[in-house]
Amino acid sequence: MTILITGFEPFGGESLNPAHEAVNRLKDKLEYHDVVKRTLPVVFHVALEALDAHIKSVSPDIIICVGQAGGRAGISIERVGINIDDARIPDNQNQAPVDQPINPNGPAAYFSNLPIKAITAAITEAGIPASVSNTAGTYVCNHVLYGLMDLIHQKYPHVKGGFIHVPFLPSQAVKSPNAPSMHLDDIIKALEIAALTSCEIDGDIVESAGTIC
Amino acid sequence: MTILITGFEPFGGESLNPAHEAVNRLKDKLEYHDVVKRTLPVVFHVALEALDAHIKSVSPDIIICVGQAGGRAGISIERVGINIDDARIPDNQNQAPVDQPINPNGPAAYFSNLPIKAITAAITEAGIPASVSNTAGTYVCNHVLYGLMDLIHQKYPHVKGGFIHVPFLPSQAVKSPNAPSMHLDDIIKALEIAALTSCEIDGDIVESAGTIC
Amino acid sequence: MTILITGFEPFGGESLNPAHEAVNRLKDKLEYHDVVKRTLPVVFHVALEALDAHIKSVSPDIIICVGQAGGRAGISIERVGINIDDARIPDNQNQAPVDQPINPNGPAAYFSNLPIKAITAAITEAGIPASVSNTAGTYVCNHVLYGLMDLIHQKYPHVKGGFIHVPFLPSQAVKSPNAPSMHLDDIIKALEIAALTSCEIDGDIVESAGTIC
Amino acid sequence: MTILITGFEPFGGESLNPAHEAVNRLKDKLEYHDVVKRTLPVVFHVALEALDAHIKSVSPDIIICVGQAGGRAGISIERVGINIDDARIPDNQNQAPVDQPINPNGPAAYFSNLPIKAITAAITEAGIPASVSNTAGTYVCNHVLYGLMDLIHQKYPHVKGGFIHVPFLPSQAVKSPNAPSMHLDDIIKALEIAALTSCEIDGDIVESAGTIC
Repeated sequence: MTILITGFEPFGGESLNPAHEAVNRLKDKLEYHDVVKRTLPVVFHVALEALDAHIKSVSPDIIICVGQAGGRAGISIERVGINIDDARIPDNQNQAPVDQPINPNGPAAYFSNLPIKAITAAITEAGIPASVSNTAGTYVCNHVLYGLMDLIHQKYPHVKGGFIHVPFLPSQAVKSPNAPSMHLDDIIKALEIAALTSCEIDGDIVESAGTIC
Repeated sequence: MTILITGFEPFGGESLNPAHEAVNRLKDKLEYHDVVKRTLPVVFHVALEALDAHIKSVSPDIIICVGQAGGRAGISIERVGINIDDARIPDNQNQAPVDQPINPNGPAAYFSNLPIKAITAAITEAGIPASVSNTAGTYVCNHVLYGLMDLIHQKYPHVKGGFIHVPFLPSQAVKSPNAPSMHLDDIIKALEIAALTSCEIDGDIVESAGTIC
Repeated sequence: MTILITGFEPFGGESLNPAHEAVNRLKDKLEYHDVVKRTLPVVFHVALEALDAHIKSVSPDIIICVGQAGGRAGISIERVGINIDDARIPDNQNQAPVDQPINPNGPAAYFSNLPIKAITAAITEAGIPASVSNTAGTYVCNHVLYGLMDLIHQKYPHVKGGFIHVPFLPSQAVKSPNAPSMHLDDIIKALEIAALTSCEIDGDIVESAGTIC
Repeated sequence: MTILITGFEPFGGESLNPAHEAVNRLKDKLEYHDVVKRTLPVVFHVALEALDAHIKSVSPDIIICVGQAGGRAGISIERVGINIDDARIPDNQNQAPVDQPINPNGPAAYFSNLPIKAITAAITEAGIPASVSNTAGTYVCNHVLYGLMDLIHQKYPHVKGGFIHVPFLPSQAVKSPNAPSMHLDDIIKALEIAALTSCEIDGDIVESAGTIC
C-alpha cells in the first residue's frame, strides 16, 4: 500500500511545527508499504489545493494529515471534521474567515474513515498517550480534515483518510513550563503505528472512547 | 414567542443535575415570551421521543436543551451535534452504545441554528464566563443536540434550536475542589439571556470564537 | 471575640480584587463576634506596616488575610508562608524583588495557626469547594502571610492568624472563559464560615488534606 | 566533586517510578565528577535513615533527591521543604501520618541550597520544560527534602542539596491520556544538567521565577 502523510508549516508565531518535524523523519518504507511525506501550507483553501495535487500525483491508499495541537498532552486521533472555518488567529496568508463554510455545498461534517479506535489502542499499547478526539477545532487543521474527506467522498472513494493532532515538542513548551509536550521520537513512533494500523485493519474495532461532553 | 427549554435528570452517580436545577427555576415569562420547561431522561433515543412529544404539545419557536458539562468552567454554547453515540458510561437505562449512528439515514452532523455567537457575547457581557464549544461529546447530550436538529430539519423547519452545556454546581465540585463550578443564579441568568437573545436576534453576529484545535 | 479580616487592592491589571469585594461586604457582627474589615496595599513591606497598624488599633483575637488566587477553582486555606519574595510582576509601587528574604532574621517559614483543616471541612460542608493549600506563592500574598505570622510570633503571641486565597469572580474570568471562578456570595459565605470556625475551634481537627507533590 | 543522586521505589499503585528509572540510567561520571546513585524507600522516616547512611558512606559534595510528580508537565526544581507530614495515601509500609512534624525540634521549613534558578535556566536552555516549584507537597518527597536539609544543617554543613520532581513517563500516562508526561531521555538529560550546574555554580543567578499564588 501507499501512505500519503502530511505535516504543516509552522504557524501562530512558532518557529517549528511538530507535525512537520515528525512527518519529515518518517521512514520511506513501513514494512512493505510506501510512505510519501509532504508538507502543507497553513492557509485556508490553498492547503486543500496542495493536498489534492499530492493525492493526484501519489495515488495513495491511505492519507493521514498531521497537525499541531498545542496544549494537548497526548496524540489525538480525530473523529470528525466540520464544515466551518472560524479563525481565532490569521492563517499564514493573513486570512481569518469567521463562520464560513469550507464547502458551501457540502454536508455539515464528515467522519474520518481511518480505524480511529484501533489506532488509539495500538498507540496506547506501545506506551504512548493517545485518545480519540471529537473536535479538530475550527482552524486550518479542521479545514484540512473536512476538505480531505470531501475530496475522498467526491473523487477518491477507495481511499481511507483522517487527521491526527500531536502535542507541542518540549522545546516549544519551555515558554510555559506547565504546558504538556511530547518527545519527537514518541510522535514519530505514534505516526508509524497509525500508518501501519490503517494498512492492516479493515473497518475498526468496537471499543468505547466516548466523552460525556 | 414560545421557548421550550429542557434540562436532564441526574446521571453518572450525581444526585442532582445543574441543568435540571437551573431550568426548573426559570421564570414562566421572559419579557413577553412564554417559557415552557421540561426535563428529559438521560437515556439514548428515549430522550428524543420525549423531546418530540414536548415539541408537539408545546409548539415552540425556540428550543434550548441544557445539559451538565462536569469539568468545564463556563457556559458552553454548542455549535454542532454529530451523528454518533459512543458512551463511556451507561445511560440511566443501562445502555452503552459504541459508535452507533443516532440516525442511520441522517447526515454526519447538524449545526445549531441558534445565534450562538450573539448568545455567547450577551452572556459574557453580563459578566458570566461563556464560550462557543465545538464538541458536545458523544453521550446523551450530543445525542439530544443531533436528534433535536434532525427533528427540526425533518418536521419543524421554522424552529430555532440548540444546546447549552453548564458547569457543575459548587456543591457537586466539593468532591474534587480543583474542579470548576458555577453558582446556580449565574447559570439561571445565562439561560435567560440565551433564551432572550434567541428570540431577538435573526441570523447571528459575525465574531470569531474559533479554536485552533 | 474580635476578628480582623483584610482584603487587598486590585493588582496585575485587574480593575477589582475579589478579596476586597468579599471582605468589604462581610457583616460587622458574626453571631456575637466583632468583624473589623480593612484593605491592604499590594506593596511589599508597606502592606505589613499597614497590617501591624491595624492590629495595634483593633486588638483582634483572630486575623484572616484574604487574597486573590486567579486560576484556582476553590477557596484555598493556606498552610504555610515562606521567607522569600520572588515577584513575577511588579507590585503596585513597582517593586519586583527577586529572592529577597521578607525578614532576614526570621525563620524559613511559619505555619498558619488557624484551624485550617476545620475551616476547610466547614466550608466544604456548606457546599463550597475548598482545600488546604501548601503554597501561597512568592508574591505579596505569601509576603503578608509570612509577615503576619512573624508579627504574631514576635508581638502578638495570643493571636491566631492565617491566609485564605479566593478565586476570580466570574466577571474577571470572562476574559478567558476556561478560567474557573466563584460567585461573590459564595466567597463571602466561605469567609464567614472561616471566621466563625476560627473563633469556635481550639487547635484543629485531624483530617488528611495532604498532597503527593 | 561527588554527587549523590537518589530516586524512589514505585508507590501509589504504579509499577515503576520515573525518578528511579532516570536516576538508575545516569552515567557514573559527569565530566570529571563522580555520580553515585541510590534508591530510597517510599516510607516516612525510613527513607531519611537510608539517606543518612548513603551520605555517610558516599561523602558527597552535592545531593539531589528525585521524586515523581504525577500531573506536572515539566521538571520541578523544589525551593522549600516544610516540617509536616500529611499523607493523602499510605506510604509503602502503610503509614499515613496526618499533620505530624518531621522533626519536632526543627524549624518550620528549610530552603534548598542548590542553585535552583541556574538549574531551571540551564534545563530550559536545553529545550526541556522546567520551573521552580514552591511546594513539594506533604508526602514522602517533601519529607525527604526537609529531612535532607535538616541533615545538611546539623551534620553536613558543607553539602549542597535539594529535590527535583519529575513528570510521569508516557507509559504511566496512557491510563489518563490528558495527563502530561515526559520522555525518559529528557528526564535523564535534565538530571545531568541539574547535577553539573550544581557543581559549577556558586550561589545562584538572580532571575525571577516567582508565582503570584
